[in-house]
Amino acid sequence: MEFSVNRNAFLAKLNDAQRAISTKTAIEILTGLKLDLTDDGLTLTGSNADITIQTQLPVTASTADLTIESTGSIVLPARFFSEIVKKLPEKTMKVTVNDRYQATITSGSASFTINGLDAVNYPHLPEIDTAEQLTIAGDVLKQIISQTVIAVSRQESRPMLTGIHVTIHNGELLAVATDSHRLSQRKITLTDAPEVDYDIIVPGDAFRELSRMIDDNEQLHLRVAENQILFTWGTTAFYSRLLDGMYPETSRLIPQDSSTQVEFNAGVLLQAIERASLLSHTGQNNVVKLELDTDAQRATLSGNSPEVGNVEEELQFSSLSGEGIAISFNPDYMKDALRSFGQATIKLAFTQPLRPFTLVPSDDQGDFIQLITPVRTV
Amino acid sequence: MEFSVNRNAFLAKLNDAQRAISTKTAIEILTGLKLDLTDDGLTLTGSNADITIQTQLPVTASTADLTIESTGSIVLPARFFSEIVKKLPEKTMKVTVNDRYQATITSGSASFTINGLDAVNYPHLPEIDTAEQLTIAGDVLKQIISQTVIAVSRQESRPMLTGIHVTIHNGELLAVATDSHRLSQRKITLTDAPEVDYDIIVPGDAFRELSRMIDDNEQLHLRVAENQILFTWGTTAFYSRLLDGMYPETSRLIPQDSSTQVEFNAGVLLQAIERASLLSHTGQNNVVKLELDTDAQRATLSGNSPEVGNVEEELQFSSLSGEGIAISFNPDYMKDALRSFGQATIKLAFTQPLRPFTLVPSDDQGDFIQLITPVRTV
Repeated sequence: MEFSVNRNAFLAKLNDAQRAISTKTAIEILTGLKLDLTDDGLTLTGSNADITIQTQLPVTASTADLTIESTGSIVLPARFFSEIVKKLPEKTMKVTVNDRYQATITSGSASFTINGLDAVNYPHLPEIDTAEQLTIAGDVLKQIISQTVIAVSRQESRPMLTGIHVTIHNGELLAVATDSHRLSQRKITLTDAPEVDYDIIVPGDAFRELSRMIDDNEQLHLRVAENQILFTWGTTAFYSRLLDGMYPETSRLIPQDSSTQVEFNAGVLLQAIERASLLSHTGQNNVVKLELDTDAQRATLSGNSPEVGNVEEELQFSSLSGEGIAISFNPDYMKDALRSFGQATIKLAFTQPLRPFTLVPSDDQGDFIQLITPVRTV
Repeated sequence: MEFSVNRNAFLAKLNDAQRAISTKTAIEILTGLKLDLTDDGLTLTGSNADITIQTQLPVTASTADLTIESTGSIVLPARFFSEIVKKLPEKTMKVTVNDRYQATITSGSASFTINGLDAVNYPHLPEIDTAEQLTIAGDVLKQIISQTVIAVSRQESRPMLTGIHVTIHNGELLAVATDSHRLSQRKITLTDAPEVDYDIIVPGDAFRELSRMIDDNEQLHLRVAENQILFTWGTTAFYSRLLDGMYPETSRLIPQDSSTQVEFNAGVLLQAIERASLLSHTGQNNVVKLELDTDAQRATLSGNSPEVGNVEEELQFSSLSGEGIAISFNPDYMKDALRSFGQATIKLAFTQPLRPFTLVPSDDQGDFIQLITPVRTV
């Protein structure tokens, strides 16, 4: 195996494939990056067993200047290899692999020799034995991910909750995540929806990584097999394992009516929550309190830490109606939720002090809702 | 105590005083920021017992809009107080302290109350009972610090070596630091040098912190008392404890002649060292090797890790003379040293493979020298 290539073009592909590679894996070969060189071009593969990313540099790609001397495959230690490529002195680099799985990387007068592994032992790609696919725009998918992934559980005790529940039915995609303290749900109508019916749980980590890779104006193709999902765009393929099991039924958690409603600018409320939570973060009791006095038309936010002090702020709102209520909640959940609304005007709706309350955009079409469970305070 | 002030003007002063404050101190009152309000203005003091920074906001400072309602002193929890000030909603803020040492900070509709401490218990400032002072330009002092502090020891086993040895004699300032593996020495002629004679050890940490605070075009005044040094500029005073003891005699460590000389561009050599050290960093043996073949006029840099692989690079040099030599060294020391030369052409001079070698600017006037002790390899 021997090729020369434009270093920056190669590095861009290497960075993509490397996103899937973890240094912490127990499977030694997965700390490596797999290179496959054929007459068509170079394929780079990285995997952490859950996520696999494969990306290609075709021999026809003009800026890559890929020159193939001899084809072959090798697995190279990913971290070292990428650090080497980043620090090479010249625009062009050359890789030569000998039959003892040693790769020599040269650029200008610098020459590295590193020990690789036989590519034969690298795990096979997941098989996606379906032709059925649907298409989704990069910006739409990124928004769905960013709005739901915040509510994904970080705890492994209920593995299913570390995923996002995605159902596709009748041309509509519904994404829900909950860590049992809060929930986020996003719905979109697919523009290009064949007759597919999916009910899957995609790991939150996979969606986070995918989201970092895709451009807004990319069109992604999505295919689902028994326990795998595959996203393809351009010359990149992104595989993720799906989570097993039945996701809990979440639709009944969302209250259908409310007794108190208040409207805020999400950005302004976020800043006030950040102030109110400054002190509460120190105590064991990370809680802020929102008091809505509908008679006096006052909204007051407060937080306190017995050791440090307290904070109180009267909030500006666009409308406030219904019954008065005082509610305490974890400010971190509220901050995550508010960030997902940007600078939009949002509506908060409450029923009882200890029952979940909801946040929706004021121009709500029923397509985005966040739910937070309050905290009992003494 | 009660005042209102422009929040950004206040925050700038607060950030300066806070540089001295450590959250790790065992002395509770030193986690606090001391505020003293007189009719002349506001004084802010922060200290970690070793370093003390005092800065002032005079009532006459026009952009600060300092309005004094009543004078007094208080110590406030520095970290919380500064986070609060940063997050306040309006341009102006107001601080009111009651007789239970509670401070109320208001801005717009936000109001914080935090518990402070009686300023009476705050340690007194070090006394500098001398009028003798000298003046040094900010950019000169920053350069001296950055060029020597790299060689300061990080280990507490020989406390003296955690400082920079500064001697001022006959209008000349000499700064030396060594961690016993390398040494850096910088000499300058003072433009404004009264008849002073100092031989002091300034803690490296103090110089690092000072360096971050000063502007290039600032003129600093320097005064030395028995165990303290004081730098003053503008409305800021920076005190540091001096280190006790006799600094080792270092002048005899610097070789007076050499048998091999080579000239490189410091920036180009730095990049090559970074490449050569990529692999060596993994092994226990963090060493790179420089081979100078004066007959063949070749300079070769190499590094290797038995597990990962090896790297070799032929280096470009401007001149190479004397006897051939092969020398091994810690690349981290070399990188630190090279960074201090920027893009200058430098001269490396060697005597024997296991004897210290030196780096000086090619246009050396004897004012800057770095020394590195090689490593024995098998």
